[in-house]
Amino acid sequence: MANSPSGDSMTERIVRVLETFTAERSMQSAADIGRRAGLPSSTAHRIVDELVDAGLLERDEDRRVHLGMRLWELALRGSTALRLRQAALPHMEQVQARIREHTQLAVLEQDEALFLERLSHPDAGANITRIAGRLPLHASSSGLVLLAHAPSALRERVLAGSLRPLAPETVTDAARLRRLLAEVRRAGVVVAPGSIEAVSTGVAVPIRDAGEVVAALSVVLPRETDPEPAIQALREAAAGIEADLRADRR
Amino acid sequence: MANSPSGDSMTERIVRVLETFTAERSMQSAADIGRRAGLPSSTAHRIVDELVDAGLLERDEDRRVHLGMRLWELALRGSTALRLRQAALPHMEQVQARIREHTQLAVLEQDEALFLERLSHPDAGANITRIAGRLPLHASSSGLVLLAHAPSALRERVLAGSLRPLAPETVTDAARLRRLLAEVRRAGVVVAPGSIEAVSTGVAVPIRDAGEVVAALSVVLPRETDPEPAIQALREAAAGIEADLRADRR
Repeated sequence: MANSPSGDSMTERIVRVLETFTAERSMQSAADIGRRAGLPSSTAHRIVDELVDAGLLERDEDRRVHLGMRLWELALRGSTALRLRQAALPHMEQVQARIREHTQLAVLEQDEALFLERLSHPDAGANITRIAGRLPLHASSSGLVLLAHAPSALRERVLAGSLRPLAPETVTDAARLRRLLAEVRRAGVVVAPGSIEAVSTGVAVPIRDAGEVVAALSVVLPRETDPEPAIQALREAAAGIEADLRADRR
Repeated sequence: MANSPSGDSMTERIVRVLETFTAERSMQSAADIGRRAGLPSSTAHRIVDELVDAGLLERDEDRRVHLGMRLWELALRGSTALRLRQAALPHMEQVQARIREHTQLAVLEQDEALFLERLSHPDAGANITRIAGRLPLHASSSGLVLLAHAPSALRERVLAGSLRPLAPETVTDAARLRRLLAEVRRAGVVVAPGSIEAVSTGVAVPIRDAGEVVAALSVVLPRETDPEPAIQALREAAAGIEADLRADRR
């Protein structure tokens, strides 16, 4: 397959085109896509045309394009994300009904916490996560659970990297973070007040499948709320999800 | 960009690789993928390697690959499917709480009904739909709503095509189907007993955004159930979803 002069593969160029779409920028012209993806205009137009022909992008009357339903279908049909999310959703609904705050499911992806599902409660407070959004591992409660159970090489890489504060109380000292992660593994839960936003406390527990931690289940509480009922609800939900994942394997 | 001897673009070949993954076949070897995608083995291996490098596929210890979280993220982050589904989910939960049967959201995609979301009730009966699954437009209640409001060229193409029965009561006569679609447009609801499975009745209503029907909301009832409470619940949910989509546009 012909690689470009810069040596990137056609697959990489397609990914760069798809990466220019975000929740805030769901409609773009081929010229905008080329500029944002760092591709020559002719290349961008050709890739966009091919993606439209394949249904991965869809073109509007004004010739701007957006992500196609076909891409959504291909990405979900055989995905492990969908399996996890389907097992988790009924249990997440129970957590939300009891705790009445945002309830979310995250997985480890490229050294960040990627949010697969989020149930919002109309009365619930602030929360910056969204579906298909990401948060740093060292700052979010979900991320701390995932980091605590990550392969040690990944954990050391994150601890050695730049631990950027998202809020005044984000733990950014590597030694303190290491002790926190050991405590998360011991207790099976993390309570992280003010780590993402000063007004909120994240509470998260691990979800295991076939012996491995595959996801984190979390709620975001107003800062002054007692976390105990949320911890109890999350633990029951995690046990239910794990049982459903086991049943699904049979 | 170099096209293959058969003239298909690199994008088409990547789509053919991704299309080999299904809910039943979520893990494959590169050799299996090549065979199922109709690609030469060397091409299949190269594309799989590139997709793994880009994170769209992930490789296991036994060298089989599955769809990557990165593909899921790219497909959802800026997608209209996610916007629709997020607006619909709280209202679907209310329908499910009231009716206690499967509740689903579908859009028109390539002359079929594509299911974006499905809430299952533990006590609910048979239902063959699944998320990212498809059903024919002329047979499913969601499909009938989408077909009734589809562009006339698409509707005529479906009516002129092969109207395959999925169950003994699927309407497969074009003239009868045309009258049914006119009635769906007039009544704003379809009740389709035994159209997909003899034991079930599908009930579906349209969801509009910016004046256009963009989706169908449906429930699957046991055949003997009175559909009126479901019709009422679906209509209230559709109005709520439409209001949320309007608010989201502002």
